[in-house]
This record gives sequence, C-alpha cells and structure tokens, in this order.
Amino acid sequence: MSEEAEVEELEERLDSDDYTLDRKVITGILYAVDTEDREKLVELMEPLHAADIADLLEQINAFDRRRMVLLYDKEFDGEILSELDESIREEVITILNPDVLAEAVRELDSDDVVDLLEDLEDEQQAAILGALEASDRVAVQQALTYPEESAGRLMQREVVAAPEHWNVGQAIDYMREREDLPEQFYHIILVDPRMKPVAHVTLGKVMASPRVTQLADLVEPMFRTFSATEDEGNVAYAFNQYHLISAPVVDDDDRLVGVITIDDAMIVLDEEHDEDILRLAGVSEESSLTDRVIDTTKRRFPWLAVNLVTAILASLVIAQFEATIAQFVALAVLMPIVASMGGNAGTQSLTVAVRSIATKDLTGANVWRVIRRECLVGLVNGVIFAVVMGIVGLIWFGSPGLGYVIAAAMVINLVIAGLAGTVIPVALDRFGIDPALASGAFVTTVTDIVGFFAFLGLAGVILL
Amino acid sequence: MSEEAEVEELEERLDSDDYTLDRKVITGILYAVDTEDREKLVELMEPLHAADIADLLEQINAFDRRRMVLLYDKEFDGEILSELDESIREEVITILNPDVLAEAVRELDSDDVVDLLEDLEDEQQAAILGALEASDRVAVQQALTYPEESAGRLMQREVVAAPEHWNVGQAIDYMREREDLPEQFYHIILVDPRMKPVAHVTLGKVMASPRVTQLADLVEPMFRTFSATEDEGNVAYAFNQYHLISAPVVDDDDRLVGVITIDDAMIVLDEEHDEDILRLAGVSEESSLTDRVIDTTKRRFPWLAVNLVTAILASLVIAQFEATIAQFVALAVLMPIVASMGGNAGTQSLTVAVRSIATKDLTGANVWRVIRRECLVGLVNGVIFAVVMGIVGLIWFGSPGLGYVIAAAMVINLVIAGLAGTVIPVALDRFGIDPALASGAFVTTVTDIVGFFAFLGLAGVILL
Repeated sequence: MSEEAEVEELEERLDSDDYTLDRKVITGILYAVDTEDREKLVELMEPLHAADIADLLEQINAFDRRRMVLLYDKEFDGEILSELDESIREEVITILNPDVLAEAVRELDSDDVVDLLEDLEDEQQAAILGALEASDRVAVQQALTYPEESAGRLMQREVVAAPEHWNVGQAIDYMREREDLPEQFYHIILVDPRMKPVAHVTLGKVMASPRVTQLADLVEPMFRTFSATEDEGNVAYAFNQYHLISAPVVDDDDRLVGVITIDDAMIVLDEEHDEDILRLAGVSEESSLTDRVIDTTKRRFPWLAVNLVTAILASLVIAQFEATIAQFVALAVLMPIVASMGGNAGTQSLTVAVRSIATKDLTGANVWRVIRRECLVGLVNGVIFAVVMGIVGLIWFGSPGLGYVIAAAMVINLVIAGLAGTVIPVALDRFGIDPALASGAFVTTVTDIVGFFAFLGLAGVILL
Repeated sequence: MSEEAEVEELEERLDSDDYTLDRKVITGILYAVDTEDREKLVELMEPLHAADIADLLEQINAFDRRRMVLLYDKEFDGEILSELDESIREEVITILNPDVLAEAVRELDSDDVVDLLEDLEDEQQAAILGALEASDRVAVQQALTYPEESAGRLMQREVVAAPEHWNVGQAIDYMREREDLPEQFYHIILVDPRMKPVAHVTLGKVMASPRVTQLADLVEPMFRTFSATEDEGNVAYAFNQYHLISAPVVDDDDRLVGVITIDDAMIVLDEEHDEDILRLAGVSEESSLTDRVIDTTKRRFPWLAVNLVTAILASLVIAQFEATIAQFVALAVLMPIVASMGGNAGTQSLTVAVRSIATKDLTGANVWRVIRRECLVGLVNGVIFAVVMGIVGLIWFGSPGLGYVIAAAMVINLVIAGLAGTVIPVALDRFGIDPALASGAFVTTVTDIVGFFAFLGLAGVILL
C-alpha cells in the first residue's frame, strides 16, 4: 500500500463510528518509532487530535512512550500535555527536551497551564514557570493562590467585558481593535464602573442587532456569577442545572476576575461522576489505568481493609450460632444467600440515594417519602424471593421449617436493606461525609449482620 | 416579616452556596397553595429557574403537586415541562388545562418538544402535536423519524449557515436581517452550494474582524460533523474528547440538517453516567426517585433474581463440603470473609475496567498490560490480607492449619478477582453486551465460587 493510501485509511478510521484509535493505527505509529522514521511518525500523527495522541501515549508501554516522545520532539505541543493523565504527564515532562517543553507550555492558555502545574512536583513546576513569559507567569502564580478545585483555578483570566452603557457598534469596534481576544468566548460581560459584572449578552444577539442598539437592551434573562473561591463541583452543578454556557467569576469585592465556560464545567462534571462511580466501588482518590501496581494497590487497600473488618463483624455474628450450625449444617449452606440478597438490595437503594443526593433531588422535603418507598420495595421483593427461597429450601433439604426460616429472614433483610440503603447515605451527607465513599461499607455491614442474625437466630428458635 | 423581605430572603437563599431549594422556600410555596393564594404563589415562584421549579414539583407529594399546578395555571411554562422527570411530566400534562399546555409547548424549541414527546403515550403526543403551529409540527414529526437516541433527535433544526465565499460584512448583514435566529448559537457554518458543511467560524472571530475579511480565512482548525443517525452516546463522547462547542449534523447525502450544541451533549453525558452508575449497582433502565413503588420494584427485581441464582450456585459449592463443615464448624464462620473480600476486590477491578471501556481508554493495545496489573494488585493485596487473616484464624480458633487455609484461599481469590474483574467486562464488551449491566453478576459469581471452593477444598485436604 502506498503511503498516501495508508494515511488516507488512517483518517478514515478516525472518522469511523467508534472513535477508538484502532490497533492498526497504533501499529503504524509504533513501526515508525521502531525504525526511527521521524518523517513518517510526524506524517501519521498529523491528522490526530491532541486528545487522541494523549490516549495513544497512555496506552503504549513506557519504553515505547519514551522513544516516541523523543522522536516526535519539536512537534510535541502543549495540548498533548494538557490531555495526558497525571502520572503519564509527569513521566513525559521528564523525557521532553527542556526547550521543547518550554515552547509547548508557552502555547497554552493560562488556565491550562494552571491545570498542568497543580499536580506536578515543585521542581517540575519551577521549570515550567521559568519557561513562561513574565506576564503569563504572574497570571499563573495568581491563579495558584486560589484554593484547589475552586472556580478561581478553573476560570480563564482572559475576559471580554464592556461598560453597561455601550452600544453594539462600540462593542464591535472595541473587539476589532483588541489584539488579545480569547480563543473561545460566547458572551460580552457588562460591568459597572467598579468592574462588577451586572449582566451579559450573547455574541449572536450583538451581531444580529444594528450598531445603535444598546447592549443593555440585549441582556440574557439567565445570569449568574461565581465567587472565585466557590467549589468547582458547585460550579459544574449550576452549569448543568441552569444550562449555562459561560459565567463570570468575581473576587471578594465582586470585581470581575475571570470567566468559566461550559467546556471546563463539563470536564469537572465528568471527573466528579468518575469519582462517584469509583468511590461507590471502593476505589478511592483519582485512579487511572496508567497508575503503577504499587499505587493501585495502595488505593485499593483501604476499602478492602474496611471490608475485612466488617466481614469479621459478620463472622462474629455467625460464631454465636456455631452450636446451631453444628446440628444443622444446611444452615451454613443457605446463610450466604440471605446475606448476599440483602447486600445487593442495599446497594441498589444506596446507589439511587447517592445519585439523588449528588443531583440534589433527595432533600428534606421528600426524604421520608423516599425511605418509605425503599422499605416498601424491599418488602414486595422480599416477599417474592421469600416464597421462592422457601420452596427451594423445602425441596432441597426437605424441611418445611428451614423454608419458613429462610423466607422470614429474606423479608426482614430486604426491608432493612431498603431502610439502611437510604438512611445511611442521607445521614452521612448530613454529617458532611461523602456518601459515595462510605455508604457501601456501612450498608453491607448492616445487611450481613441482619441477614446472618435473622436467619441463624430464627433457625435456632424454630428448628432446634 | 414583610412580603418584600420574604422574597428577598428567598432570593438570597437561592444564591447561597448549596443551590438546594431549602425547606423554608418549599414551605412558603406550599402555604400559598394551601391558602389558594395565587398572587403569592406567582410572586414566590417568579425568581425561581424552571429547573428549580421542576425539582420542587418532583419533591412534593402528588396531592400538593396537583393543587400547585392548577393554582399556578397560566404561569406554567414549557421550560418547566422540559425539566421534569418523565414520570412526573406525564402526570403534570394530564393535570394542566389544555390551553395552558398548548401555550407552554408553543414556547419551546423544536428539539425540546421532541425530547418531551418521545416518552409520552400516543394520546398525549397527539394533544401536544395538535397544539403546535403547522411548521413546527412538521419539524417535530420529521425529527421523530430519526432513531431514538440519535444525533437527529438531539439536534436543533435552526441553523446559521453561510456560503463559503462570504465575507464578515455579508455575514453580519445577513444576521441583522434574519428574523428567526436561534436563541443560542456559537458558530456560523460554512456550506458549499450543495449545503454540505465544510468548516465553521466562531462568532468571536467574526466580530473581531473587519467587514472585508473572508469567512474562509477565519475557520477553526477543529471541525467535525455528525450523521443524523449517529448514536447520541458517541456524539457526547466526541464533544467531551475534542472539546467541541457545537457541531453540524448532516443527512445521508451530507447535507446540513441541524446543529448539536455542547449543552445538549452535556445532558447526554450526564444521563449516560447515571445509567452506568445505576447499572453497576443492578438498577436497570431509567430510574428516578419519583417512580412509584411498583415500577421501582419491577426495576430492581431482575438483578436480584440474577443474584439469587448466583447465590444458589455458590451454595451448591458449599453443599459439596457439608461433611467437612460438620466436622469443623469454624469453617462456616470464616468462609464468608474469603468470599466477601474476593467480591469487593473484583468489584474494584471491574468498576475501573467498565469506566475505562466507556472512556475508550482500555483497548486492544493495553488490555494485556491492564490484566497483568490487576492480577499483580490482587496478589499484593492478597498476600497482605492473607497474613492478617492467617493470624486472626490462628488466634481466634487456635489452629495454625486453619490460618494457612484461609491465607491461601485469600491469595487465590484476590488474584482471581483481579483477573475476572478485568477479563469479564472486556469480553462482554467484545460480544456487544454492555459491561456495566452484566459484569457485576458474573464477577461476584466467580469470586464466590472460587472463594468457597478454595477455602473449603483446602480445608478438606489440610485439616481433616
């Protein structure tokens, strides 16, 4: 196949439905790296978006990554750095030729540089800050004075603002004259003489209006500002809830200091979701496929340790009934079923509760109704599975008593699962603890203990 | 407190950090409903965003909801309908006075009407379609011909396009003359004579350039179009991956038919995340706090049924070792610990794998490395917990043999958990099954069975 045809095929693949860099593309690039064919590498990478190149770097192994970064050299741009996972980013920064790194960083917007810097070691931070032009360096250092994960870190400092008494013609002339307009902006922010944002107008409305129209006559009905110290999670929630496109950020004196756009909010929302989903599964902190074994092990360990403690608690409950089990071994066979059903039902309830708390749909106004509903759902499903398991117990072990016991334990545990699955996350949230992080351990502890206790306790009373 | 002061306080509360409608606001509104004080209700609701009113309607009970909707009457606007959860939306549509409903729907953009219609019963659909003006009705009916969850349903049909040879002045004049510009738009799409989109320019660049500048000289480097039949999940992924703000949608002949904006993509991304998180917990289909008990029960049932089957499978494994347990009841006490640790470790691995598949970070290029890493993590954590449990077993039951058995079973089960937690979702994905939906059941079945088998089997060999 000719080279042009290959490149064409590559582009076609990238346009294909699944948006994944497929194996063949990666093979071509790795072959160029193997043969140290710089020209070919640059040609193959050219059609790729920085986000795709970052994905590619994350997916290949460290040896190939090093060779590829060194071969790609001057072509390596700042966007790729921005898109990389934290752990790989640190690695790549140490590989890059300092001149290439400096050039790459200088291309970036200040908010991207901040994002890049905040996760780096001091030494690497200093290297990057040193590479910036003086004005950019001041801007970045100022952004770093805001708390981590705040609106101040998320915002871009380049804003387009106009006095509230301007008309459309003045705004257009101002923009035509200004040299350093941001790459992307969607609103002109109207400010009062003290630089306090009072409203904003969309570019579309400005362009569609005659030059004499007052900007003040075009303002949007929905306008919200954020404090620079506001948590980025709240900012993302507000963007999602109120369908904001961009919003000004103000300092403590209500003066305009920056602007947050929806694409930044989308990234935060995406991260928060990922965090929730991972926390629910007991994978704490940021976690990615590119982490090393030792880091991953450390991140998984705490939750497993918590789980070990709760499992031992459940075992202590079982130990109380050793004599009963010794007389009736079938109990040992069936008891995990009751605990497992309770654990699953509890996880269902708690996941719905955690999501509803995150989206602020579960509040004081409806919490009792939700708890009642979850218990009722547990009751209905409990009765159905009680009948099934009663029959299974009867047929399998030929003991009607065992059937009654497992049926009763099932109903009790599924109702408790609904109750615990809702009350525990709500209570944790009230105490200021992230319910996504801690609910799972508590809920399964409750359902294990209740499950074993109800099943073995009832068996002790009824069967012996 | 005077009424003005109350309203002021209400507004202040809405500006407060947590963005939740607090109890006091809701109480005030419900009091107005109770006293049938329409004026007061309208006054209290006025500062609220449609999304907040929708949340409020979702959080109060059905009786209050009915009275509130009827009292609010003419003020009820289409935005509120758009923001409501599906189940509550159907309820509210039947409550609303038909004239109010018709008026509310007429205010909406065509894509919002489509979104509203697709979940409704035929009868309600007909009522709403009937309320639309003829041109809007045609637009909506045409959108409904695209597959569900496709780009064609997501897009808005109002586009701003210009011939590729136009200059800035022509574009501005065109927009000033056009009456029906979309509420929100961020790019002017350049089309060739056959209406095929070839590039786009941001409004910011257009406004900042002199009238004689050719639009073709201002085009953005990143430009992507979507086919109208493309899955909305892929669209959302591309918006997130490539930081798109808006993108044209084309029909089978590559002609421009609409445009998708980032706020639509953000909603889809949010829904897909919710779906993933709920599916991982075994809550299938759309699910919300406002569903009735019977619907919720039905949605939770299938997963619990699957879990019952897998739990019974695990019990069958235990049943093979009844004789061993009868001789050594401590085994019954300790066996749930091994299974539970395996289940949790497996869930950790599978959650990371499912997320990585969703974000297309886990691919053919790195799957073997990831599997190796997960197994190694399982091995390291397995050894640590093996030591801990060996000691616990020894101290608790005074049996070194029991200590060895539980330690060995722990290592085996945690390695298998890492393996199964990665291989199962990857395999499901290859077979076209959503890994978020089905992995959990498979993985915990594997860890339960391996856990019980390894622990009880080793015990049978070593202890007896």
